[in-house]
Amino acid sequence: MTNEKSGPATPRQPQAQSHWRRVVAVVLLVYLAFSSLSLSSHPTSPDYSHLADYCTSSVSPISANEYSARQESLGSVLHSLNASAYIAEPGPNAFFFANVSTTQWFLSERPLLFIISPEFIDEEIHPKLSVLAPKFEATRAKLLPIPFPKHKINWIEWPEEANPYELSCYCIIRPTEEGGKVFVDGAMRHFIVDGLQKALPESTVLAAPAEVKQLREKKSKAELEILKCAHETTLLSIREVHKHLYIGIRESEARKMMASALTAAGLTDGGCLTLFGENAALPHGSGSDRVLTQGDFALFDCTASLLGYRSDITRTVALPDTIIPEDHLTIWMRVRTVQDLVYASAKEGVLTGDLDQLARKALTDGRYGQYFTHRLGHGIGIEGHESPYLVGGSKDVIKTGNAFSNEPGVYIEGKVGVRLEDCFYIDEDGKAVFLTQGVGGMASSPLRP
Amino acid sequence: MTNEKSGPATPRQPQAQSHWRRVVAVVLLVYLAFSSLSLSSHPTSPDYSHLADYCTSSVSPISANEYSARQESLGSVLHSLNASAYIAEPGPNAFFFANVSTTQWFLSERPLLFIISPEFIDEEIHPKLSVLAPKFEATRAKLLPIPFPKHKINWIEWPEEANPYELSCYCIIRPTEEGGKVFVDGAMRHFIVDGLQKALPESTVLAAPAEVKQLREKKSKAELEILKCAHETTLLSIREVHKHLYIGIRESEARKMMASALTAAGLTDGGCLTLFGENAALPHGSGSDRVLTQGDFALFDCTASLLGYRSDITRTVALPDTIIPEDHLTIWMRVRTVQDLVYASAKEGVLTGDLDQLARKALTDGRYGQYFTHRLGHGIGIEGHESPYLVGGSKDVIKTGNAFSNEPGVYIEGKVGVRLEDCFYIDEDGKAVFLTQGVGGMASSPLRP
Repeated sequence: MTNEKSGPATPRQPQAQSHWRRVVAVVLLVYLAFSSLSLSSHPTSPDYSHLADYCTSSVSPISANEYSARQESLGSVLHSLNASAYIAEPGPNAFFFANVSTTQWFLSERPLLFIISPEFIDEEIHPKLSVLAPKFEATRAKLLPIPFPKHKINWIEWPEEANPYELSCYCIIRPTEEGGKVFVDGAMRHFIVDGLQKALPESTVLAAPAEVKQLREKKSKAELEILKCAHETTLLSIREVHKHLYIGIRESEARKMMASALTAAGLTDGGCLTLFGENAALPHGSGSDRVLTQGDFALFDCTASLLGYRSDITRTVALPDTIIPEDHLTIWMRVRTVQDLVYASAKEGVLTGDLDQLARKALTDGRYGQYFTHRLGHGIGIEGHESPYLVGGSKDVIKTGNAFSNEPGVYIEGKVGVRLEDCFYIDEDGKAVFLTQGVGGMASSPLRP
Repeated sequence: MTNEKSGPATPRQPQAQSHWRRVVAVVLLVYLAFSSLSLSSHPTSPDYSHLADYCTSSVSPISANEYSARQESLGSVLHSLNASAYIAEPGPNAFFFANVSTTQWFLSERPLLFIISPEFIDEEIHPKLSVLAPKFEATRAKLLPIPFPKHKINWIEWPEEANPYELSCYCIIRPTEEGGKVFVDGAMRHFIVDGLQKALPESTVLAAPAEVKQLREKKSKAELEILKCAHETTLLSIREVHKHLYIGIRESEARKMMASALTAAGLTDGGCLTLFGENAALPHGSGSDRVLTQGDFALFDCTASLLGYRSDITRTVALPDTIIPEDHLTIWMRVRTVQDLVYASAKEGVLTGDLDQLARKALTDGRYGQYFTHRLGHGIGIEGHESPYLVGGSKDVIKTGNAFSNEPGVYIEGKVGVRLEDCFYIDEDGKAVFLTQGVGGMASSPLRP
């Protein structure tokens, strides 16, 4: 059975072949090892281990108490809006309320749903958490890292032949009035929303409103600690890699260096959009693998994860021995000035759309308005891009606890691209503070990112 | 700028350190190279290169003509149902109609939508394809591998401050009657469905009905050729790895071997759920990394991708030198018999739910019904699991061109798990044919998978 094809006539041949393969392997390895002694002066894997000492190993994950508080707040909001439940699939919102993302549970055609319903106990409102899971996967579902004691979770196991949405009705506490609402995560797949609506004909199933979204938009102290560490470490990684860049390096090599640095720093899922010269004019990347030449800026747009929260920082840098065209340096300075202007104007009470308008006007006054082709920024937290957004026309009001990217850019296709991105949050006094304040915040120049 | 911290006092130290690191690296590599000569007789990376010769390099991708035909069929179905459009995000359905999956375009908060609307030209119905793309990413969007001449695509670029859903209305050809319908992909995220419904108040936006789904459920000759090759190669890979298993191997090691074999065979994104002994009783896996012992079955549930189509095969195997308990062998034989029964009964016109019922009854008669905890099977094609499903209560009728998994199983937690899975399609005569027919189809015994 084990090797029908080789037969008894040549039983020793595979072993002999195998021996010679190993000898060849040894010779090759010895050659490679010695040839490494004469490597060029540009090692592709510098040592980034010191980055790990900065903060990532000492910052705390979100506590079970904080998860409970999030659910309590959700319960109160649901009650105040006469909604009988909030329902989410594994994803950023389920991670916020119950610590389960798609990393822990892959989305399949079989729904796994988190259902939070407000319940009156001793004249107080408390959130009741139910988890609807496929019955045959229930053993695995119960291993999910939901940060609550087992007895606090109401498990509903749906057999293969059942309608899971109908079973979900049993764990929704009905509102006292007729015609209640059931809120769902806006990212939920439509077939699930559809199934829920059909199973709950007397309720309206609709996307969670602003009041629910604002629970995630207002970052807690613990969340800000994680976000600060993630951003500071990401920026330190960029600065470290910047030291090891050289004329002639490829985008792919620099990208690998950045990924290594972020990993060494203790971050996960890290990576950088890495674009040289005119490639940086395509804000989300080109298809080529360009070499860094003497007249080029290098753009790094980096993101990485720490305890479920993401960083997002962009630096457009130059090397000491490059000769950047003067008009490109002017663009860099203009973008940097706009970042400053936005930072000085961002505070509690300002409309997000007005901030975008401010940046756009400043770049237009400087003749670069038409080349600023994207919104000014986005919220940041569990997702790299999340609400609220700093986008034209938005009437969202900036609030304490919000965290945003501030990322003006100028993209002239075929010529040059400059983006500078730093994230900030709004503190208790309503003022903007960079998440990278601890390591100096914004770039000083293309040589000092 | 490049290394501010080292200063001028110790300029040669880093180079000297670097030299000694390289010398140490050489010694280590030489040691490792020579020690590989005395490895055990169980190499963890056998040579699977011969698997590549089988079919994967010679099978053809779906042609541009076939994509056109799919869109033509969709246009006719939409017209017949008085629907003014079908809309999908990148994903399996957009891949089916326009060759764009989430591999080519990552889903973000900015919608990229494929809109197909039936249009009358010379008294004939033709599909009109529009692509709604974020304006600042339009350059990249136009690089997507949509298999149509550029002039055949109607591009709509939405600026950051615009409502993309309102812009999408301009490319939907209105039905002659009032109150038309707009169909969306069932997997579309709810916030997009919501945005479309608000922008199209006079239409009903709803999940695409059976008539649309059936276009993908009926596999073409070209699709079946790809699916056959993917399944045959996956099965050959399992059989090859089976030859290299040994008592004492870990699940993680066997899993790696399987992944290597699938890759060597020319398949992509390949992997196998690899479970030994009682771990196989959890159909979708455990958290441990068990060692294969003498009384164990090894279960491999493998999937891989070829030209955008997936394979799915499960084998529960034994080694020649194992001593499997008799009752476990009985379970294996029982599951195998049920597979045969299902295969003999599957044909055009049979209800999918009845096939599940048949398998369930057979296992119940054999006293194992309670341990068959999941549905009998699922459709297979662009997704590993897709409609139609072989599940209890389903009234879907089996049709020519459908492709299904046939995967009965018995799972006794803490003891044993056996699953055997082979996929089949329904041919032009309405009969079931295994996608692995070319390499012998179902397993003959735990020793001959």
